[in-house]
Amino acid sequence: MMKVTVSRKAHFNAAHRLYREDWSYEKNNSIFGKCNNPNFHGHNYELIVSVTGEIDPETGYVIDMKILKDIIKSEIEDVFDHKNLNIEVPEFKTLNPTAENMVVVIYDKLKRKINDSLELEVTLYETPRNFVSYSGL
Amino acid sequence: MMKVTVSRKAHFNAAHRLYREDWSYEKNNSIFGKCNNPNFHGHNYELIVSVTGEIDPETGYVIDMKILKDIIKSEIEDVFDHKNLNIEVPEFKTLNPTAENMVVVIYDKLKRKINDSLELEVTLYETPRNFVSYSGL
Amino acid sequence: MMKVTVSRKAHFNAAHRLYREDWSYEKNNSIFGKCNNPNFHGHNYELIVSVTGEIDPETGYVIDMKILKDIIKSEIEDVFDHKNLNIEVPEFKTLNPTAENMVVVIYDKLKRKINDSLELEVTLYETPRNFVSYSGL
Amino acid sequence: MMKVTVSRKAHFNAAHRLYREDWSYEKNNSIFGKCNNPNFHGHNYELIVSVTGEIDPETGYVIDMKILKDIIKSEIEDVFDHKNLNIEVPEFKTLNPTAENMVVVIYDKLKRKINDSLELEVTLYETPRNFVSYSGL
Amino acid sequence: MMKVTVSRKAHFNAAHRLYREDWSYEKNNSIFGKCNNPNFHGHNYELIVSVTGEIDPETGYVIDMKILKDIIKSEIEDVFDHKNLNIEVPEFKTLNPTAENMVVVIYDKLKRKINDSLELEVTLYETPRNFVSYSGL
Amino acid sequence: MMKVTVSRKAHFNAAHRLYREDWSYEKNNSIFGKCNNPNFHGHNYELIVSVTGEIDPETGYVIDMKILKDIIKSEIEDVFDHKNLNIEVPEFKTLNPTAENMVVVIYDKLKRKINDSLELEVTLYETPRNFVSYSGL
Repeated sequence: MMKVTVSRKAHFNAAHRLYREDWSYEKNNSIFGKCNNPNFHGHNYELIVSVTGEIDPETGYVIDMKILKDIIKSEIEDVFDHKNLNIEVPEFKTLNPTAENMVVVIYDKLKRKINDSLELEVTLYETPRNFVSYSGL
Repeated sequence: MMKVTVSRKAHFNAAHRLYREDWSYEKNNSIFGKCNNPNFHGHNYELIVSVTGEIDPETGYVIDMKILKDIIKSEIEDVFDHKNLNIEVPEFKTLNPTAENMVVVIYDKLKRKINDSLELEVTLYETPRNFVSYSGL
Repeated sequence: MMKVTVSRKAHFNAAHRLYREDWSYEKNNSIFGKCNNPNFHGHNYELIVSVTGEIDPETGYVIDMKILKDIIKSEIEDVFDHKNLNIEVPEFKTLNPTAENMVVVIYDKLKRKINDSLELEVTLYETPRNFVSYSGL
Repeated sequence: MMKVTVSRKAHFNAAHRLYREDWSYEKNNSIFGKCNNPNFHGHNYELIVSVTGEIDPETGYVIDMKILKDIIKSEIEDVFDHKNLNIEVPEFKTLNPTAENMVVVIYDKLKRKINDSLELEVTLYETPRNFVSYSGL
Repeated sequence: MMKVTVSRKAHFNAAHRLYREDWSYEKNNSIFGKCNNPNFHGHNYELIVSVTGEIDPETGYVIDMKILKDIIKSEIEDVFDHKNLNIEVPEFKTLNPTAENMVVVIYDKLKRKINDSLELEVTLYETPRNFVSYSGL
Repeated sequence: MMKVTVSRKAHFNAAHRLYREDWSYEKNNSIFGKCNNPNFHGHNYELIVSVTGEIDPETGYVIDMKILKDIIKSEIEDVFDHKNLNIEVPEFKTLNPTAENMVVVIYDKLKRKINDSLELEVTLYETPRNFVSYSGL
């Protein structure tokens, strides 16, 4: 029963702003600094989706990488790429689009499309120097 | 008279939108596609500034890298980082912030601060797969 | 009892083809797509070998990186580099050389040469966007 | 008349063998070493296509990156990806597929599809440590 | 109770020498090879600091990345950057500055500054091909 | 007469100190800052050697990459790797080992070993963000 982890990199770019509607502009600024720019700023997000499970002895695959690539495209890239996260992605209308909240939202969207026998971990690079990861634990 | 090129990498992130005010939404969409999103999208821009000149025999420097780093910070990073290019950077109020136009604007801003005896080239990565460069020629 | 993980990157390039001899060409094509090209295709494989154990208080090493580098060279690079995996590597004469099967074969070959008190994990990049890892669990 | 260079990265993987049919196996081996493996080996090729020209004052583009991306896909990726270069790419039936010969073939295929007012340069990475470039001069 | 890992990359460069004062030059050479150069050699160290904890529902942060960046600067970069580790960093006056010993020292220095409810892991690249990691276990 | 540029990456690590013996400690500090640490600091240097010439119609090579790799090893890596540049590399006993001076020294050492019909350019990364290049002009 050998468990192998298969990972696929993807990417999208988007605009966002970090703030809470129920806080004053001053409080938002003291916590979120220049990330609170009301005119938005943006990033090239790099995404790594890792799926762990047993190798299918017939195909030699844990999961067909082409299928994983298509799931990432339809669930994440088509929804997030070239978008304003705060305005155009429903999950972030009331949730602050920090990298931490984003990686949980991405995990949840992918988890629904991946067979339950497989473990899932998602890593999201907000910049080449800042990244987050989440595995549902 | 040995000419050496000295390069320094920097980075900033920003939101932007590609469009012309004097075109219809349809025409903008046909040319700029999803880059015309009126809610903006964004990028992590990576910048390489290259300065060519003779080595100062006293110091062994073409240009002091710390001075070059400070010029890039005050002229470019402080002005572009975490900003909405269309709204907050004066040059792009009437100029479409394509990577091509951006690299020329960045070149012009740096050129004024670099000794005229030195040649300048600027390379700007909009994404890890798309980049532009300009050397004033 | 501090456990530190020491990792070493290596690389090799090779040709391969994904298919099963006991399947029809049509079935192989429906599962493996263009990876089933009977004339082979190839990759630059990047390999990361990670060894976890206690620091030897005398040397300050978990494992001498030069020794680890030599094991990777003799066990993996000399055997896989510039080879056709299906034809020239015995393990893949009857085993489909998917990245998943490759990472298990590489793990097993290295495991025999690494002290049993050390844990081993192997990560294999098939392309810059696709990679797999295996730790014997 | 500002000339800007616009670059786009692409990639493909392929199998190949370096040898000349009109040389003995021994002579091929003495020149091409393990690259002469008759069972082929392979690489992930990374490709950078650079186009230099004036910025169109209307669009702010030198060339629409989406159009450039599509040309690279139809002319190069669709023809080379997951292929055996020696057997399946007509240009290399009689031409040794060294990186040098490949970059000239790629340049020639792209040059036909790019407006003559634009300069073209092609860089091809055979491995992360070996690469070649050609600009038609 | 979702646990997310937040990572920040930093870097410093330093000189060092691997040896034990209580060993002969010959014994040091047989174990540490050219790393035992008595005139020192050096590296650009890349550091990844990973902090795991629950997302603060108010801010959407596990830890404010700016605070983490400042801790890394004051505890590690200001102390190690452009230094001779053997001579100028107190911890290595009697401890061999192997990558393994360094990652434990860095972990211990950061651990004191990070809230106890958060888990910490540190990864240190000595070269692009050699790296170590430690999580206090 | 097609001219192709062939490039090869190599690397070495070394300690150095920037200063002039004929300057006071204060003057050295004001110009070279922390790079003037008398106990030395160090870097992982990445080197790119680029050779331009016509493709040999017999072999399809501009220069055999294995030969280029061997020249870089014997002329540069064996001389610079794990060394203290100021103390152990003769060229820098009286020449300040700035990146600019280093790239000229490396160019001169390689130029003597490369056929005069070939053009040479050398790029040297002192850190991932600082690099220099020289082509003898």
